[in-house]
Amino acid sequence: MILFTRSALRASAAAKLQNAVELIRPQLSSVEALIREQARAFDPAIEDYVAYACGTNGKRLRPVLALLAGAATGPLDSGHVNLAVIIELIHLATLVHDDIMDGAEIRRSQPTTSAKWGNTLAVLLGDCLFAHALKLATRFPDNEVCRRIAEAASNVCSGEIIQTQHRFDLKLTIPDYLRIIEMKTAALFAAAGELGAYVSGADPGVTLALKTYGLKLGTAYQVYDDCLDLAGTEDSAGKTLGLDLRRGKLTLPVLYLLQDASREEHQRFSDVLLGATGPETALDDLVKEVVRRGCLRRAIETAKKMVIEAQTEVQQLARSRYRVALQDVAGFLSNTVDQLAAVA
Amino acid sequence: MILFTRSALRASAAAKLQNAVELIRPQLSSVEALIREQARAFDPAIEDYVAYACGTNGKRLRPVLALLAGAATGPLDSGHVNLAVIIELIHLATLVHDDIMDGAEIRRSQPTTSAKWGNTLAVLLGDCLFAHALKLATRFPDNEVCRRIAEAASNVCSGEIIQTQHRFDLKLTIPDYLRIIEMKTAALFAAAGELGAYVSGADPGVTLALKTYGLKLGTAYQVYDDCLDLAGTEDSAGKTLGLDLRRGKLTLPVLYLLQDASREEHQRFSDVLLGATGPETALDDLVKEVVRRGCLRRAIETAKKMVIEAQTEVQQLARSRYRVALQDVAGFLSNTVDQLAAVA
Repeated sequence: MILFTRSALRASAAAKLQNAVELIRPQLSSVEALIREQARAFDPAIEDYVAYACGTNGKRLRPVLALLAGAATGPLDSGHVNLAVIIELIHLATLVHDDIMDGAEIRRSQPTTSAKWGNTLAVLLGDCLFAHALKLATRFPDNEVCRRIAEAASNVCSGEIIQTQHRFDLKLTIPDYLRIIEMKTAALFAAAGELGAYVSGADPGVTLALKTYGLKLGTAYQVYDDCLDLAGTEDSAGKTLGLDLRRGKLTLPVLYLLQDASREEHQRFSDVLLGATGPETALDDLVKEVVRRGCLRRAIETAKKMVIEAQTEVQQLARSRYRVALQDVAGFLSNTVDQLAAVA
Repeated sequence: MILFTRSALRASAAAKLQNAVELIRPQLSSVEALIREQARAFDPAIEDYVAYACGTNGKRLRPVLALLAGAATGPLDSGHVNLAVIIELIHLATLVHDDIMDGAEIRRSQPTTSAKWGNTLAVLLGDCLFAHALKLATRFPDNEVCRRIAEAASNVCSGEIIQTQHRFDLKLTIPDYLRIIEMKTAALFAAAGELGAYVSGADPGVTLALKTYGLKLGTAYQVYDDCLDLAGTEDSAGKTLGLDLRRGKLTLPVLYLLQDASREEHQRFSDVLLGATGPETALDDLVKEVVRRGCLRRAIETAKKMVIEAQTEVQQLARSRYRVALQDVAGFLSNTVDQLAAVA
């Protein structure tokens, strides 16, 4: 029996993801084409802004989930493609607004819309994308898709507000943190899973399983993203790293550090976290401490546990290559998270 | 025969508006109560922000129009009340975002949400209100209300973007200006008229007439608001005046000034408008010139003409006290615009 090496496992996870995406390649190409077409639905004066915001080289992760959830529960049709477009547009709208709030200059190796054209334009552009996505959602025969999309969007923004309220809040609990990331990130993943099944006309149990799958996967994804901000490389992340701590965003590894600290250590870490405008090296040292004490590794394990829970959910679905694909997408995330453990 | 004095006319217009509002008082009170109740639909952590943004002492003009349009075309029911709430929430969302972009500190004699809690919070709060309004719109039995609300919202934001693009653009034409204000302001008035009739099940001709009524009235309202910014008093406007010119927003009276200017004058005015960061007195002098040359009066006459067109539209409706009320609301605006002529 041959034991897999880490890099072989990684290659295998990547190949499985590739296969999963190949299953829905034609529909995913339609999604891409439709997203790029949306710019033309706007006034010519703003077409270019929309095209720029939509054209960034995103992973289109939410469309992949919506399409796989749809395919796992029935034959894919244009409804699933439209759903995937709508969810991605909502996501792009939130990115445009996120970048304003974070003062981010680079996203996916390109200047953000706010860096390129200023905050005023970016506020309005996000609003336009959002309104347009909901207009598209009204094309479904009933109100359900539109309602759940609006609800997910409301959760995303509410989660962001609550996160903002808790900047530099050293009393933030781990359940608080998980609730925030469920709202701000996992809500759209959950909508992708749930509505993919809904558009297929799946029964409520299966629809709920895919919603829960999305929720777990989305939460794991955000934990990963937060770990990456602490321990990644700028190259692999395609954005500026280490910003969370500087902005007072306390993420899971740091919360573990604080939770396990002695009273004296807690005081010392708190001083560093609150004096975030002080010398950069103090924060760098704190990150090293997070790694040294195994708190990064623990956060990674938490994310991997969530991925397994997500994979377990879809076992309720009828056996199909799409069900396998949903599990493989989750497996790829798990493997990617694990790569961060190399530094942990 | 007694000739009415200006103040008697004003009192009469105000009394008519009062009567118009009294006709729908119970429903308007329900709208007010429901708007205030919406805060509770949000996460407790953000309830207070929503309550603050919704509670400002607005005129609730769009709800009045939606309810009167509904009553003029059928018996009012809870659908009309919900519609009025949805339209006002969209309006409130756009105000929250407008105030960020304008850097406005005061709105309706209260600190703006951005002044009170910062831009980050205000971006997210506007998004939340917007998403929530669309969620409410999905409660209607079909998708039509939601679709038209999303479309109106998209127009509002697109209009704002186009206006932003044309700041300090001395080549802005009067048709451009009118198109921008139709999008950014009149679109929601038009939706109030149109959807008020739609919810009543009115026939397409009547629905279109009420849409056009809203469009004309909304455009006139924005022209009035723009004139007020030039020639009003801070007391009556409840906000800082003269900001448009300083921000490079060219409004109708100024466009008339530029249109009628000789080549030499055009150059002089342009220098003042472009050097808007220069001495304040140069801009003040330009405003005086706008008044002296009758350009403010001309803009006022344009607004009044639009009001008459709006009033003419509703003559297609069956005769009723609500039809009269719609005309009286327009008449009040006309009279208010006319009061600005006292300085013109």
